[in-house]
Amino acid sequence: MSADLFAACDLLAQYGALVDAAKYDEWLELFSKRCSYYVKPRENHELGLPAGLIFCDSRAMLEDRILALRIASKYNLHNDRHIIGLPRIVANEPDGISIEAPFAVYQTEQEGDTRLFATGLYCDRLERSGDSFKISEKLVRIDSFAIQTLLATPL
Amino acid sequence: MSADLFAACDLLAQYGALVDAAKYDEWLELFSKRCSYYVKPRENHELGLPAGLIFCDSRAMLEDRILALRIASKYNLHNDRHIIGLPRIVANEPDGISIEAPFAVYQTEQEGDTRLFATGLYCDRLERSGDSFKISEKLVRIDSFAIQTLLATPL
Amino acid sequence: MSADLFAACDLLAQYGALVDAAKYDEWLELFSKRCSYYVKPRENHELGLPAGLIFCDSRAMLEDRILALRIASKYNLHNDRHIIGLPRIVANEPDGISIEAPFAVYQTEQEGDTRLFATGLYCDRLERSGDSFKISEKLVRIDSFAIQTLLATPL
Repeated sequence: MSADLFAACDLLAQYGALVDAAKYDEWLELFSKRCSYYVKPRENHELGLPAGLIFCDSRAMLEDRILALRIASKYNLHNDRHIIGLPRIVANEPDGISIEAPFAVYQTEQEGDTRLFATGLYCDRLERSGDSFKISEKLVRIDSFAIQTLLATPL
Repeated sequence: MSADLFAACDLLAQYGALVDAAKYDEWLELFSKRCSYYVKPRENHELGLPAGLIFCDSRAMLEDRILALRIASKYNLHNDRHIIGLPRIVANEPDGISIEAPFAVYQTEQEGDTRLFATGLYCDRLERSGDSFKISEKLVRIDSFAIQTLLATPL
Repeated sequence: MSADLFAACDLLAQYGALVDAAKYDEWLELFSKRCSYYVKPRENHELGLPAGLIFCDSRAMLEDRILALRIASKYNLHNDRHIIGLPRIVANEPDGISIEAPFAVYQTEQEGDTRLFATGLYCDRLERSGDSFKISEKLVRIDSFAIQTLLATPL
């Protein structure tokens, strides 16, 4: 159990670091072959409403999003900084675990202003892969439906 | 020692998650039968002044505060998000440990604005309860005496 | 490996706590006899440009900076609050490890306003010292070249 929490902490640390370093290919490697990635406002989640801001229900969709980010999307250039809080394990099964972890993401714009971009809760399903984990489901429950600028880089 | 730090991390992760999910009854369960919960500005604490913003020196007072929050208090409706930093153990005794952990709390208002609500330091006395801990004393040392809106939900 | 990550977490927790409590002598003790401490904007670091905001390449320079902070420097009085995220180990050698950890620093001014001061990434080289570590190199890669007020207390 404590080894699982440890491996989950390690995965989350890598997750944040790879997005912040814009290493999106390595970031994709943290997901399993079959995976989903959703970004959904807390409000909709609590009301059982399906609409979200990002809905990738396969690895191919997630890869496509990264490709679009690189060659097609127009957005305010910025750097991300993820601060991810301590996770807790909410379910434990032979082939994986479910965890929750709070996060805050800051963005620094080209002019040098750093500001809070979003806070929320990661609700992740992690699949065992040897001694470590891969992400099979990631639900990013953001605290606000109101994203100030474009949601371009992954949360 | 490292098992203690581990259990402390787990308790803090639950603490933040339960407040943020507004699961106040489960949050109360993290405290021991005899407990205290104080919120005090750093300034007063450093000057040895007793005045604080919240002063609950029994479990009954803490339960009462949650009851008031649910049925009587008027306050700006919001969601909380706790980001709790890595804790350190500052005292170690047979029946428990004392820890410190920094925190930042964000609030998201009904209109969708997320802003920093408070930062500070948790100074906790944790009592052994089997393999885990219960909170017997919690001093929330907030960095500012100036709380922008009402202090309604627990820090 | 997991014992190393544990010891790194403990060191980071102390690092933040000691700066925030203004215990600068104890903070200095976290560094090894031969050490360096740089603060550099991310932009310059990525472009390979050498200029930084703080450049201490010996323990004596770091001690000098703390001395100046105490008796000579004029700056806006404030309290710091470090929220340091989960670290990851990026290199592992017999005599030490290299880690990265994201951070956010908040400052609370005398009037009681708390605001985000800086975000960034710690890139640390840690040297084994018995069961724990000492910092032999610390590169504070701040996300913005634009520091709003004076950079007085250590990041």
